Amino acid sequence: MGPHPAVAAIRLAVRRVLHDVLNEAAYRDNPGTATPDTPHGSTPGEPPLVLVACSGGADSMALASALAFEARKLAVRAGGITIDHGLQPGSDLRAAEVASRLAALRLDPVEAIAVTVGRDGGPEAAARDARYAALDEAAERLGASAVLLGHTRDDQAETVLLGLARGSGIRSLSGMAAVSGAARRYRRPFLHLDRQTARKACLVQSLPVWDDPMNADPAYTRSRLRHEGLPALEKSLGKGVVEALARTAQLCRDDADALDTWAAQADTTVRDEAGLLECAKLYALPPAVRRRVLRRAAIAEGAPAGSLFARHIEELDRLITGWRGQGAINLPGRVVARRQGGRLVIRQG
Amino acid sequence: MGPHPAVAAIRLAVRRVLHDVLNEAAYRDNPGTATPDTPHGSTPGEPPLVLVACSGGADSMALASALAFEARKLAVRAGGITIDHGLQPGSDLRAAEVASRLAALRLDPVEAIAVTVGRDGGPEAAARDARYAALDEAAERLGASAVLLGHTRDDQAETVLLGLARGSGIRSLSGMAAVSGAARRYRRPFLHLDRQTARKACLVQSLPVWDDPMNADPAYTRSRLRHEGLPALEKSLGKGVVEALARTAQLCRDDADALDTWAAQADTTVRDEAGLLECAKLYALPPAVRRRVLRRAAIAEGAPAGSLFARHIEELDRLITGWRGQGAINLPGRVVARRQGGRLVIRQG
Repeated sequence: MGPHPAVAAIRLAVRRVLHDVLNEAAYRDNPGTATPDTPHGSTPGEPPLVLVACSGGADSMALASALAFEARKLAVRAGGITIDHGLQPGSDLRAAEVASRLAALRLDPVEAIAVTVGRDGGPEAAARDARYAALDEAAERLGASAVLLGHTRDDQAETVLLGLARGSGIRSLSGMAAVSGAARRYRRPFLHLDRQTARKACLVQSLPVWDDPMNADPAYTRSRLRHEGLPALEKSLGKGVVEALARTAQLCRDDADALDTWAAQADTTVRDEAGLLECAKLYALPPAVRRRVLRRAAIAEGAPAGSLFARHIEELDRLITGWRGQGAINLPGRVVARRQGGRLVIRQG
Repeated sequence: MGPHPAVAAIRLAVRRVLHDVLNEAAYRDNPGTATPDTPHGSTPGEPPLVLVACSGGADSMALASALAFEARKLAVRAGGITIDHGLQPGSDLRAAEVASRLAALRLDPVEAIAVTVGRDGGPEAAARDARYAALDEAAERLGASAVLLGHTRDDQAETVLLGLARGSGIRSLSGMAAVSGAARRYRRPFLHLDRQTARKACLVQSLPVWDDPMNADPAYTRSRLRHEGLPALEKSLGKGVVEALARTAQLCRDDADALDTWAAQADTTVRDEAGLLECAKLYALPPAVRRRVLRRAAIAEGAPAGSLFARHIEELDRLITGWRGQGAINLPGRVVARRQGGRLVIRQG
């Protein structure tokens, strides 16, 4: 008798990602045979180390159990990291307990890492920044080829809706990538798996899980979305909404990548000999490409990407498409844009 | 003292669209002076006729009142059409009453047109098809340059969410266009205005409005979305959701247009002398462009666009990116695709 279907599903998802990591490692050791994507970290000849980032919740505990199981069958070493965000009393004890659970799965090395969460961008963003910084540091220090993250299709659906609420276009609708980070470090094996499957896999494997109270706290947007917004949307639109959102994410990611490629190419064709953007050539581009060229140009002059909103780009665009002699435009990061003699001049002000 | 802000807002929205229609009419009469978009219908020299499609609800009654007001100030004749869908007892009397309200606004001509709603695609789609067929016929027969539709930003937000539920990509996220139909016939002046403004404008102008019971009937997806899904989403994500969805629609429309342009160009570069699609050249395209080239090719061979889903295109794409000798693929409309000698052959089966 094989494993429970939920356990089979989580193991298959992890196996696929481990194969990718191994193929990329093989390519690095012997270029010309495999894919062109090179994982960093591990020493040639030694089995690559793969870490799981684990909060102790059902998703990442299921991931840890599947990694432990699959790594034994492949030439992969498996370790685990849990982050103590220090946001609740006793979080250090909690982190130590999660670490002992990871060690019980025979992951090695296992670390509980305490971080200091700042305030930039709100509590959720600050916690995330601190967490990824610690994971990056640990991956470098331990020479890990990959760090697995337990985000599920449900998390992806929530991320798409959060992006939708920003109204800033398809890049923010494209959710989380299956592979991301420096040196393709972060992998999300469960991005096509639903949360219920991960929970079920923990249950049938008798894995203790910890429900982070932050996940149920209506003070957090994601929590409200999870417990109220998304269920109401499913009630209106039908049960396929989560899957549709996840599929939308993938399609939007591919579309955004293609348009970024086009914009990068177009960027080289719309400049004069001095490197200034020519308004007539910009005008001739499709609006979607022109806006991306303008965004690139503003960022290249120092406007912070995160502070550059759709309305800034629209204002810039009106210098091209709605020219009526308007003055200089102030952009974030003290960047100033003006139209001069048929050229768009974007500079630090 | 000027009009109430809500009345000023609806009038301004209509005025802008009427200016567009007039500019396009001027270009048609005297090419070389104005925009390249030619409205059809009206006889040269005669003021163009603009119709409003009016259900009697607040949005389209507000639109009718603004059209009547603005047309008097411009060289535009204004008429109104109301459609009797025959779906409720007494709908003929209701339509006659709406027509008399339009006539009271001094619109001329005014017509109540009875249609027969079929069953294709469900009750909402069938009613819409019958309605647009009747509006097309009336516009042709009366020689109208444009037909104004009362869709608001709220309707747009609902349309984006309905598209999101399909999970079929950015074209279905792009909602309704400000200008659409043969000869740029349909115009949606209120696409950036909220429903509340239209209601308020009716109230302060003492315009009687009729609330279609279909709009509140939870048997309809759009109605559930309006009364449950969208409010819950606003509660989770904040009040800006409707605006963000409408902005997403516009950005997605521009992106989809640009990628369609790219795909049309790419289509000409990936074929051999016999006009067959070359797999190696398809492989080299960005996934977002390749999928669109494949979709175009399937439609060109007779696959109905509406029945061609993301999963069909993904299966086609695997003939290119995941080739392992798989057999022919059946697509809707009895279209068959197979890979043969490095070519993708798509044909009626």
